[in-house]
Amino acid sequence: MKALRFKTKQLKVEDVAPPIAAGEALVRVSVSGICNTDLEIVRGYAGFEGTIGHEFVGVVEDAPADSSGITGKRVVGEINAGCGRCGLCRTGDSRHCPERTVLGIHGRDGAHAEFLTLPAGNLIEVPDEVDDVEAVFVEPLAAAAGIIERIEIGPDSKVAVVGDGKLGILCAWAIASLRESDVTLIGKHRSKLERASIAGVNTRTLDEITGISRAFDVVVEASGSESGFATAVDLVTARGTIVLKSTFHGQPRWDAARIVVDEIAIIGSRCGRFRPALDLLRLGRFDMSRLVDEEFRLSDGVRAMERAGERGVLKVLLRP
Amino acid sequence: MKALRFKTKQLKVEDVAPPIAAGEALVRVSVSGICNTDLEIVRGYAGFEGTIGHEFVGVVEDAPADSSGITGKRVVGEINAGCGRCGLCRTGDSRHCPERTVLGIHGRDGAHAEFLTLPAGNLIEVPDEVDDVEAVFVEPLAAAAGIIERIEIGPDSKVAVVGDGKLGILCAWAIASLRESDVTLIGKHRSKLERASIAGVNTRTLDEITGISRAFDVVVEASGSESGFATAVDLVTARGTIVLKSTFHGQPRWDAARIVVDEIAIIGSRCGRFRPALDLLRLGRFDMSRLVDEEFRLSDGVRAMERAGERGVLKVLLRP
Repeated sequence: MKALRFKTKQLKVEDVAPPIAAGEALVRVSVSGICNTDLEIVRGYAGFEGTIGHEFVGVVEDAPADSSGITGKRVVGEINAGCGRCGLCRTGDSRHCPERTVLGIHGRDGAHAEFLTLPAGNLIEVPDEVDDVEAVFVEPLAAAAGIIERIEIGPDSKVAVVGDGKLGILCAWAIASLRESDVTLIGKHRSKLERASIAGVNTRTLDEITGISRAFDVVVEASGSESGFATAVDLVTARGTIVLKSTFHGQPRWDAARIVVDEIAIIGSRCGRFRPALDLLRLGRFDMSRLVDEEFRLSDGVRAMERAGERGVLKVLLRP
Repeated sequence: MKALRFKTKQLKVEDVAPPIAAGEALVRVSVSGICNTDLEIVRGYAGFEGTIGHEFVGVVEDAPADSSGITGKRVVGEINAGCGRCGLCRTGDSRHCPERTVLGIHGRDGAHAEFLTLPAGNLIEVPDEVDDVEAVFVEPLAAAAGIIERIEIGPDSKVAVVGDGKLGILCAWAIASLRESDVTLIGKHRSKLERASIAGVNTRTLDEITGISRAFDVVVEASGSESGFATAVDLVTARGTIVLKSTFHGQPRWDAARIVVDEIAIIGSRCGRFRPALDLLRLGRFDMSRLVDEEFRLSDGVRAMERAGERGVLKVLLRP
């Protein structure tokens, strides 16, 4: 089968043997999405080698006997596969299992391929109302919605999201929809901000917020840049909360004294649960196609990755 | 009256007119304590000029008519004086009033003097069971106990405190006492750690924790150093909490990716409420005199500050 692989610092589409689903489910990928983490991996983040990609929708080709009901179903999949034995896995949260593998990120081949494997328990059937192009956004939308697993946001909370990339837009959409609070999305690119505009989400360029500071109860940092973090520190009010959402490279400097004196909380947030994200998509409030710039064949995966890295581009999809 | 003042980059004991208590209470200081923040101010932190000092116990000499009952009482005082009009002040939390002055730190002369003034509402009577040397620790003990206002710590939480200075020791003591959880106090100096040892507090030197990582649910950073913050990040478990307690100078670099991937929370914590701290002292579980290295006359204030800045020294007290 074809797979988009990163190995010895080279990104290539290769012909490899399909994965063997020892004890896991085998999924034929229908569509996969290129995430910034994929671009980061190719820059050396996480030291991963193998098939990249972790956003997908597909159809189950084969499953272990005790999960055979899922065979033939259209599914998405939670990307963390825990050991199944530790305390965290036993309480149902394998996202922090220290022995976990992560699809296309850590110790497990990923989704930019014709087939992938995951534990059957990671797979969730996609309802008919959610089409493939919507379903491929479940993983990043779950990550965005995961913010409200970590902190309290009420309808009166003033919320800002810094970063007008895919993740920032999904964070703004998810918070505006799930908490009915007004969200201000702040970015550099008027063109991206226009694509992000929905009811409940105000968009502002960085220029338009000059002089505004300490104005938001919650600021989500989704730009993955040092300057974005500095903006977040500037925008958050005393006793406010900064949510760190982007797994960015580098070690930002920060004004630790302000964090202490103003008793600010900085909350790291990574993945989220898929079910609430699927429920959000089912409501049909988001037009996901607005975030898609281009689709490529998997065989053009290298070109697709280049396109995904271009300025102003949001989502690029791959089809095997 | 005599006052220990920092002005045009010089620290001096000066003879100045006693403060005029326009609408506030006038307090004759019995004992004041030198805090690391005093040392930081003399290094230029916060740009403060005037009489330094914010830890004190004293006797009310005069109070406005509507608070006259407090005249003659032995008191300690909350150091933040809010505007009294904004939303924060009206809900009783003037600690974050944007217009606030702070005793000996911001816009208000402090406690290393024969007299000081504060709003009568900031003063709290000291119970007879708490002597002056104990009472002078109320402010830093309140700051330490303030941690549990900010985060949940249960009896099963594994807690570490990084930093064997006064603040670190008080944090360890307060958490061990208020939450009955085992606390590990980590520092560089065996001599300080020995003075910190009480039931419920294990002490470890940095050497003794080599190779231990991701082992604590809560890590309190009370060293005020970049290396202390790095140690805290190393010690905290996935989904754990780092409490930033020291208002340190400088801008530490940090591994933001670890904070996101392991979904760590970093919580700034500054002041705390005095009443629970007084209640703690009343129980008589802490022998505060163990933390006192030396007492000076206020007239020797400059020498006292030098002594307080020496390696291995914990608390230095001043008496007018």
